[in-house]
Amino acid sequence: MSQLKIALAQINTTVGDLDGNLAKILCEYKKAQENGCDLVVFPEMAICGYPCGDLWQKKYFIEEIAEKLELIIQVSNWYDCAILLGAPTYDIERKKQVLRNSAILIEKGEVKKIFYKKTLPNFSVFDEVRYFAPSGYISNVEFRGQTLAILICEDLWDNKNLFLLKEQILDLVIVINASPYAQNKHLRRLELAQNFCKTLDKNLIYVNQIGAQDSLVFDGSSFVMKKDGEVLLQMRDFVEDFAVVEVAKDGGVSILPLTPALSRKGRGSKNELGLTPSPLAGEGWGEGSTLQAQNYNACVLGLHDYIHKNNFQKVMLGMSGGIDSALVAAIAVDALGAENVVLYALPSRFNSQSSMDDALLCAKNLGVKLEIISIETMFEAALQTLPQISSLAKENLQSRLRGNILMAISNTSGALLLTTGNKSELACGYATIYGDMCGAFNPIKDLYKTEIYQLAQLKADVIPANILTKAPSAELRENQKDSDSLPEYEILDKILFTLIEEQKSVEEISKNFDENLVKKIAKLFYSSEYKRQQAVMGPKISNMAFDAERRYQITNKFTK
Amino acid sequence: MSQLKIALAQINTTVGDLDGNLAKILCEYKKAQENGCDLVVFPEMAICGYPCGDLWQKKYFIEEIAEKLELIIQVSNWYDCAILLGAPTYDIERKKQVLRNSAILIEKGEVKKIFYKKTLPNFSVFDEVRYFAPSGYISNVEFRGQTLAILICEDLWDNKNLFLLKEQILDLVIVINASPYAQNKHLRRLELAQNFCKTLDKNLIYVNQIGAQDSLVFDGSSFVMKKDGEVLLQMRDFVEDFAVVEVAKDGGVSILPLTPALSRKGRGSKNELGLTPSPLAGEGWGEGSTLQAQNYNACVLGLHDYIHKNNFQKVMLGMSGGIDSALVAAIAVDALGAENVVLYALPSRFNSQSSMDDALLCAKNLGVKLEIISIETMFEAALQTLPQISSLAKENLQSRLRGNILMAISNTSGALLLTTGNKSELACGYATIYGDMCGAFNPIKDLYKTEIYQLAQLKADVIPANILTKAPSAELRENQKDSDSLPEYEILDKILFTLIEEQKSVEEISKNFDENLVKKIAKLFYSSEYKRQQAVMGPKISNMAFDAERRYQITNKFTK
Repeated sequence: MSQLKIALAQINTTVGDLDGNLAKILCEYKKAQENGCDLVVFPEMAICGYPCGDLWQKKYFIEEIAEKLELIIQVSNWYDCAILLGAPTYDIERKKQVLRNSAILIEKGEVKKIFYKKTLPNFSVFDEVRYFAPSGYISNVEFRGQTLAILICEDLWDNKNLFLLKEQILDLVIVINASPYAQNKHLRRLELAQNFCKTLDKNLIYVNQIGAQDSLVFDGSSFVMKKDGEVLLQMRDFVEDFAVVEVAKDGGVSILPLTPALSRKGRGSKNELGLTPSPLAGEGWGEGSTLQAQNYNACVLGLHDYIHKNNFQKVMLGMSGGIDSALVAAIAVDALGAENVVLYALPSRFNSQSSMDDALLCAKNLGVKLEIISIETMFEAALQTLPQISSLAKENLQSRLRGNILMAISNTSGALLLTTGNKSELACGYATIYGDMCGAFNPIKDLYKTEIYQLAQLKADVIPANILTKAPSAELRENQKDSDSLPEYEILDKILFTLIEEQKSVEEISKNFDENLVKKIAKLFYSSEYKRQQAVMGPKISNMAFDAERRYQITNKFTK
Repeated sequence: MSQLKIALAQINTTVGDLDGNLAKILCEYKKAQENGCDLVVFPEMAICGYPCGDLWQKKYFIEEIAEKLELIIQVSNWYDCAILLGAPTYDIERKKQVLRNSAILIEKGEVKKIFYKKTLPNFSVFDEVRYFAPSGYISNVEFRGQTLAILICEDLWDNKNLFLLKEQILDLVIVINASPYAQNKHLRRLELAQNFCKTLDKNLIYVNQIGAQDSLVFDGSSFVMKKDGEVLLQMRDFVEDFAVVEVAKDGGVSILPLTPALSRKGRGSKNELGLTPSPLAGEGWGEGSTLQAQNYNACVLGLHDYIHKNNFQKVMLGMSGGIDSALVAAIAVDALGAENVVLYALPSRFNSQSSMDDALLCAKNLGVKLEIISIETMFEAALQTLPQISSLAKENLQSRLRGNILMAISNTSGALLLTTGNKSELACGYATIYGDMCGAFNPIKDLYKTEIYQLAQLKADVIPANILTKAPSAELRENQKDSDSLPEYEILDKILFTLIEEQKSVEEISKNFDENLVKKIAKLFYSSEYKRQQAVMGPKISNMAFDAERRYQITNKFTK
């Protein structure tokens, strides 16, 4: 009876890092060979990272990828193990050269078969029709006594493909993916896979990439599902992982232990080539895998990879004593280590001593230095220079002077500045552009204020109780509270969620909330589009994030 | 012999302004009726504006559009004239509701026929596959004795459609468009239309929208082409326009004069409903229609519409005495009138008196007030607050303090702040984020420095000679010149153009330029992607603008 040993290589690639990605692929390929595998499966676009954007339109980029694939083909000569990986490849359609999103099966020095993605996602954060030509069919391959259907990511989400597969005589379905994290998305993946497995009565191997790429976080969470829909193997989320399963022709499937040497250092430790791995710095934290823990891990990985993949080490942020900056500080410490985080408190006449105490205690709990720099000298000089400005302008000015100070320190030290605005604030424009919006990355950008409180509870060991419970304030004038300008966050977030995530109309939302309040919030929301378009990116957590996912014009009169 | 009188209504719509757009449509419809027309033709998506982005995904938006179309249908009851206009409409495909980019022909209280766009652009600035389902065919309609083929914009650019049309027995081709300006694009449109006309041996009516929408400027430039490829009627660019032609069944075609009352007030003046028209403020300027004049007009219209469509009146900008801010000031005056422009000079110890003199003379020539506010008090206070910062941080600090001052004034006065960075600077990251990059709109964003000089020559009547000829400097330290950090702009712009517009590799470009220089510039270019993603928008002029057109990841290791 034909048995296939198949390795799942859940790796963290970087867009455009062809040499680095190749090294990772070869390293895991070797591991699979050493484990006696027949095949090792890598994610979609493993060679170039995902998504590459307009890089995919550069011919010399695709040609260089082809050169790297040649190296893999050469290596495959020495191995018994075959390799399946994602890459962009040129193809000819009606005499014209077109680019395909491809899965390439390489065995013993030859390309055995190339599979093309049929269903190209062009919604949400995806723009694949901009780059690729779709295949007309789903194909399979005879491989060492079994027939494998090979799908690429969105192919699994298209029921038409399930019907096509039903016509085929198959032994196993393999799906290679670059499927970004969104909360609860993994449950949807599993449901979908169950439908495939049960309908086809076949086992399914799902290999996803992990790692963050700008605003997208890929959670990995690769899995092997049995034909009855049971999850045989669930690989880890938010870390690189490697596993081997054995699949029999009769449909029997089991997990194989890794060779001891490999299993010892397989997870999250430095790999053979000494490449920086991308585990969570605070690995082991959040193992409970509640939704909040997953969201927190996504924020941590999002920040970790943005900083490291852009060749930075250190970050800094302004610490107000409020919950947003406290949570960002905690995320930064988990992502980069306390030694790579510097905090600054930038008080003015309007900041309370209790806020300062809260900030100091939080910094102490985190084991991070907090420097205190008063903005009063600069604020005085600005008021002297600009005696006529409005009170709103004075509030913004404080925020912008803080931005100036932090950017000057960042320019001097080389530490990247983080911003700490939450989704509720950014939705309402309750943020000062060029002020507290200064910075390179915002780890909590896609979390509503009520979610900030939930995630901060997870870090109650380091975030002081007073920060978790006090009323939010920007402290830009005497006794200011957020609730002076905005409704309570419990209400605000519900309205915002319905407006943004569910795309409901003001009229519809007003059935459940006060109409004037809904109108006011909708007006704030639509009129602050210009701020969002100049905001820094942050990890996508929700199903409607502000970065690549939500595309509105600034000039827009339809605000119903 | 059947004769059709057809009006071309080249109007300026606003995204989401359903009531405003409807009013304009009804106003021009009435004009066509009064001119005894059989048909009036409006641009693509005339009812909702173009492009609407994710607004198109809101069901209640499409439903409200359908209500507006109902009103047009009712009005058509009273008129002999029929109307053809663009709108998004729902259709059923394989039992599923899909959205189409449609052209709707309405006659005597009924929808006579709906035409669906077949070729959906999903490249460059376009994302139509994200929103619409494509039609499988190009269709025609019998209308008052003639057979009309109706195409929508990109349908004209797809040769496959020409072959489909060759199979049809036709009298006339009508194309409705939302075709954005890019330099020399109109020549390409005419070439394309000539190919259609000559191949089909048919006349062609091309109606384009005018007006700016965020970073896109629609130039109008509608035309009627005779079957031999000759341009019978060329409508104006960058202003609303209205014309009537008569088309005979035998292919004879001629321009009809408008009724005197209409022709007198038809162009650029207030229309019957008292709506704000969108002509150039400096109408009549740039009539020579050189490429530079067209580019200048695009910048003017881009700024005009961004300000007015977002309900602002006044703008302000920092005036350094350099050529970039002088050109922006000239554009602002032409777009909005001198009374709506305020200039600020914000000198430090490093600014020369001659720069100040240049700025003052330019302001005087423009008839605009120049206020002078020294940044020295704030700069001193900042240096006192931050004694340890690097010299680069000190340079950036000056720029950021200027940003603070200008934003505080903008927040107080309600005048929108303009930024004045050119494409060469933005490409190299030679701009201070949160400093001189502060602002709501950048009218010269898509012009290379060498193009800035060319356009400024057109305004030599107001821009002092010294500004046009002196060496560029940011004046952030003693005797600084741009050429300390960058090569001469003549060389720089050629390398940048090849890198950005032609997407050539460093290796390829190095065949014509010094390799180390090319590498240095490519490095500056790729490593400043993060600045471009936080930059404000500006009108697209080139064939590879930085806003909606060029889509790169910040995290990207491929910089060859």
